[in-house]
Amino acid sequence: MRTSIATVCVSGTLADKLHACAAAGFDGVEIFEPDLIAAPESPEEIRALAERLGLSLDMYQPMRDVEGVDEEEFARVLRRAEAKFRLMQRLGMDLVLCCSNVATATIDDDEVSASQLRRLGDLAAGYGIRIAYEALAWGRFVDDYRRSWDIVRLADHPAVGICLDSFHILSRGHDPAAIAEIPGEKIFFVQLADAPLLSMDVLSWSRHHRLFPGEGGFDLTAFVGHILRAGYLGPLSLEVFNDTFRQTDAARTAAHARRSLRWLEDGVARAGALPDPGTVALLPDSAAPSGFDFVEIKAEDTSEVEQVLAAVGFTPRGRHRTKPVTLWSAGRARVVLNEQHARDLAPHLAAIGFEVDDADAVTRRAAELRLPRAYRRTYATEQPLPAAVAPDGTEVYWAQAPDAGEPAWVAEFEHGERAVPGSIVRVDHVSLTQPWQVVDESVLFYTATFALRSESATQVASPRGLVQSRVIASPDGGIRIPLNVAPPIVADPGPARGLAQHVAFSCSDVAAVARRARERGLALLEIPDNYYADLAARTDLGDDEIARLRDLGIVYDTDGEAEYLQFYTRTFGQVFFEFVERRGGYGGYGAGNAPVRLTAQNAFAGAGRVQP
Amino acid sequence: MRTSIATVCVSGTLADKLHACAAAGFDGVEIFEPDLIAAPESPEEIRALAERLGLSLDMYQPMRDVEGVDEEEFARVLRRAEAKFRLMQRLGMDLVLCCSNVATATIDDDEVSASQLRRLGDLAAGYGIRIAYEALAWGRFVDDYRRSWDIVRLADHPAVGICLDSFHILSRGHDPAAIAEIPGEKIFFVQLADAPLLSMDVLSWSRHHRLFPGEGGFDLTAFVGHILRAGYLGPLSLEVFNDTFRQTDAARTAAHARRSLRWLEDGVARAGALPDPGTVALLPDSAAPSGFDFVEIKAEDTSEVEQVLAAVGFTPRGRHRTKPVTLWSAGRARVVLNEQHARDLAPHLAAIGFEVDDADAVTRRAAELRLPRAYRRTYATEQPLPAAVAPDGTEVYWAQAPDAGEPAWVAEFEHGERAVPGSIVRVDHVSLTQPWQVVDESVLFYTATFALRSESATQVASPRGLVQSRVIASPDGGIRIPLNVAPPIVADPGPARGLAQHVAFSCSDVAAVARRARERGLALLEIPDNYYADLAARTDLGDDEIARLRDLGIVYDTDGEAEYLQFYTRTFGQVFFEFVERRGGYGGYGAGNAPVRLTAQNAFAGAGRVQP
Repeated sequence: MRTSIATVCVSGTLADKLHACAAAGFDGVEIFEPDLIAAPESPEEIRALAERLGLSLDMYQPMRDVEGVDEEEFARVLRRAEAKFRLMQRLGMDLVLCCSNVATATIDDDEVSASQLRRLGDLAAGYGIRIAYEALAWGRFVDDYRRSWDIVRLADHPAVGICLDSFHILSRGHDPAAIAEIPGEKIFFVQLADAPLLSMDVLSWSRHHRLFPGEGGFDLTAFVGHILRAGYLGPLSLEVFNDTFRQTDAARTAAHARRSLRWLEDGVARAGALPDPGTVALLPDSAAPSGFDFVEIKAEDTSEVEQVLAAVGFTPRGRHRTKPVTLWSAGRARVVLNEQHARDLAPHLAAIGFEVDDADAVTRRAAELRLPRAYRRTYATEQPLPAAVAPDGTEVYWAQAPDAGEPAWVAEFEHGERAVPGSIVRVDHVSLTQPWQVVDESVLFYTATFALRSESATQVASPRGLVQSRVIASPDGGIRIPLNVAPPIVADPGPARGLAQHVAFSCSDVAAVARRARERGLALLEIPDNYYADLAARTDLGDDEIARLRDLGIVYDTDGEAEYLQFYTRTFGQVFFEFVERRGGYGGYGAGNAPVRLTAQNAFAGAGRVQP
Repeated sequence: MRTSIATVCVSGTLADKLHACAAAGFDGVEIFEPDLIAAPESPEEIRALAERLGLSLDMYQPMRDVEGVDEEEFARVLRRAEAKFRLMQRLGMDLVLCCSNVATATIDDDEVSASQLRRLGDLAAGYGIRIAYEALAWGRFVDDYRRSWDIVRLADHPAVGICLDSFHILSRGHDPAAIAEIPGEKIFFVQLADAPLLSMDVLSWSRHHRLFPGEGGFDLTAFVGHILRAGYLGPLSLEVFNDTFRQTDAARTAAHARRSLRWLEDGVARAGALPDPGTVALLPDSAAPSGFDFVEIKAEDTSEVEQVLAAVGFTPRGRHRTKPVTLWSAGRARVVLNEQHARDLAPHLAAIGFEVDDADAVTRRAAELRLPRAYRRTYATEQPLPAAVAPDGTEVYWAQAPDAGEPAWVAEFEHGERAVPGSIVRVDHVSLTQPWQVVDESVLFYTATFALRSESATQVASPRGLVQSRVIASPDGGIRIPLNVAPPIVADPGPARGLAQHVAFSCSDVAAVARRARERGLALLEIPDNYYADLAARTDLGDDEIARLRDLGIVYDTDGEAEYLQFYTRTFGQVFFEFVERRGGYGGYGAGNAPVRLTAQNAFAGAGRVQP
């Protein structure tokens, strides 16, 4: 399928946008009129630039308020349209988007609208131009694609067709099934946008909150299926109005946008909706990872982390044979401490590893999705570890899950001790702090590459503002990654150092781990007595149980049946550890305890408060 | 009237919050339960701290889901409540907020709810505690204050009364007039919040977008009038859930909150709603300023600005007799160039001055509102200029409008030239760039202190994201101040250097000013030809007129009748000048032209693009 993108999706000047969209691999663009009006380049220059970049100029947009008007107003519409048709000729363009009337419509009559579109079509045809008529979700009279199709059918003009935009249809809850009944050659253009399922006025929702496919709540795979069944052969074009993407780096956003379309194409192909199945190469099959292979903490000096790991029961498994890197393990949890290329760096979570069933397939999938690769110095005789850089900068590795025992790379660590059984079982989840402007991109990164799912979203109060949290997880819970977004005022747009990352380890007996840590003199995060008084008031836990939890600084959550117990280390550098015990299939993360934890951590210690 | 504030309104730990609220001059606070639970201090410590700070602990909140439940659930409610009542005794508190049931209600029956509140009241009374029952706007069965009052009346218990929250009532559009029929002694508490008039689900609106009184769209003066007519004698308490205020400096937010309540008290008193008019001192009367007295640009070296001023027709009026400050004027526009204490500073808008009809009244009003004062080195024989620091850091001066001629302070400038008549008339508007976290505070600053009004709000697209713009103006248009908020990613939380400020001068003949500037070799901002092609397509301007505008780089707007012509200088430092001509009473700011201007300025040149 050909791919296109509206220039409004990305930041910068029109020339910036064309460069970015071409570099990302799009076949064409829609020219958003305000971008052209503000451009210093002449239409001929834009045309030549697009030609050199190999971009087709697919649609000029939008023309507004063209139909349903009185004849005096329609005369002005034709005059304005003719000027735009001449401009389009200079651009070498032959398709223009006409939106259903919002502002000037006075006549609610399909015949009138059809007649006006027909006359506009006559004028357009004289310039070799075609008109794609689109029902806006907030059109004055025409706000449903089925009505816009009625009008186009009535207009019955070869230069007048319909434009279908997933947002305008799905935001209103209109059934897209009737699309399949529109003759494909009358669908002149298709615009795609996803969106979170919000309850707000549809205009604000559309103008500020659209997302790229795969990042929101719309079923775009099914939507495109209807389009293709209708026989549409034109490009799939993204039109995403989003406050964040309008300001972030254009090249990056365009690459992200193209990735979302590649993911969607694959989904459409897998759903069997392609008329000619050979036209889209499927992405290599990839099951969700079965678990975390390792987590890596990087710092100039990792000895503070070693103290903590030793106290809670991790075993030192030795030093890497060629690098200043050590491995610690407990149960199936493996923590790599990396001092290579780490000058001046405080401890932070630099990488995570996934165990996958087909590492080669993931590697090819990552390449198909054009993910930025991560490079790590390895020598010829060492285990190669393929990796991609996640949008927040974390390196994400993947390796073949071993049939039994430990993965092959563990053998590269020398002079370590033998692992001994204990209460720590494996990595339960990894919380990654996200700069707010990348969190949607991160969702697509994990879901498209690793077949993970975007699950619950929540907000957690802290003394420094609300922390937004979205969870990425595998269906069986082997992988859980809460993505936390710090309040913008404290988070530098960079690596959001203010809000600590953390690794949670699941335990068979979390109290035993806490007790061991305390016996070894490890200072844990202090939980206030007020918390335990409230816990006693709102749960059925007995006084003895409350006293035992308080004594060990363990916090508690329950959904009525299943239970969750947690305790936290202090924060070292930008990271802390959490130890959890899930009882009875508890599926959450103790969000109710997070405000207490964040307050005890003095929210984001080290994050400078900003005063304007 | 006594004043109170819920601790959820401000950031920090509970102790931080108490300190901030006391310093701001509140009489008491509502303790938001999650703040207490996360606090390391014991209830006794919190009680003692509040006592030392002179803060009463007015209400503990919230208890949720207490009524409309089956008896098994109600037994749990009583157990939970008793634990909280014991906690309140330790805190020395005697009033608790009970919200209408959202989660566990199964019985939609006023008699059942009333009976349960009565039994809860019995339990509370044993601890010397009273219950304030509040209808949440999204309560399962009880979502209207009139129904909550019916239930309280049915409960008929001395320890059971009602809590009235302006948000829950006004967000639903419920008529607050019936409040006046509730006996004052049964209104146990009143919570106040303003809010912008948004179209979204009421829960999200309430949790994230509340504002302090005077900053949103609710008529709180009338609301409080109803409360007072009912005979309520308790505190007016602010309960404002706002994502921004939850993260900005607590002391600053508390002062801002207290200011909003002072403004509201004044409005209520002026509306004649006080039962005992002597209880609230009116703020000194203040009419809106009649115009701008001056604008001041500060820089280590202001010579670039001088070149621009000279080219467009300003007259150098001399140097200040004691300071490295010069004055330029054209018509009634006065520009002060200040090189004092300006080492390393690029040109920026440091101060604006207003002409007011009673400078002393404004001074007293500013003091009553506890505005931070600005200090400027003046000597005993010089004109004193009172000033306040606006939330964005701009110094705002006010001075008595002269009966005729120039203000007295002009005489302190020596060795200047005589002003000559020209096309520049006066300062039309001053656009101030706001860090996003202070814009609501800025609105209150201008409206409460200077009797200005908050007018239109709009958004303008730039190549670097959407710029939010809100206009502060006087009723006659003598003062116009667009407050512009740059997209967060490019604006440092500090002085938002990325987006340029500007001063617009109104002209009797803007083309003459542009021509003069060009003749003197001043390079103006270049407007692309594409803009003029579009202008020709969408307006009735003739080819000659379009050519004349293009030749001078003038952009144009019309509302169909009135017209607006503008041209812009290039940006020097953080500021540029604009020259405008309003024809036929045009009231806007040419927002449609702003994207073209922002693109020509390469959006915010000098603002570093941020890459995570």
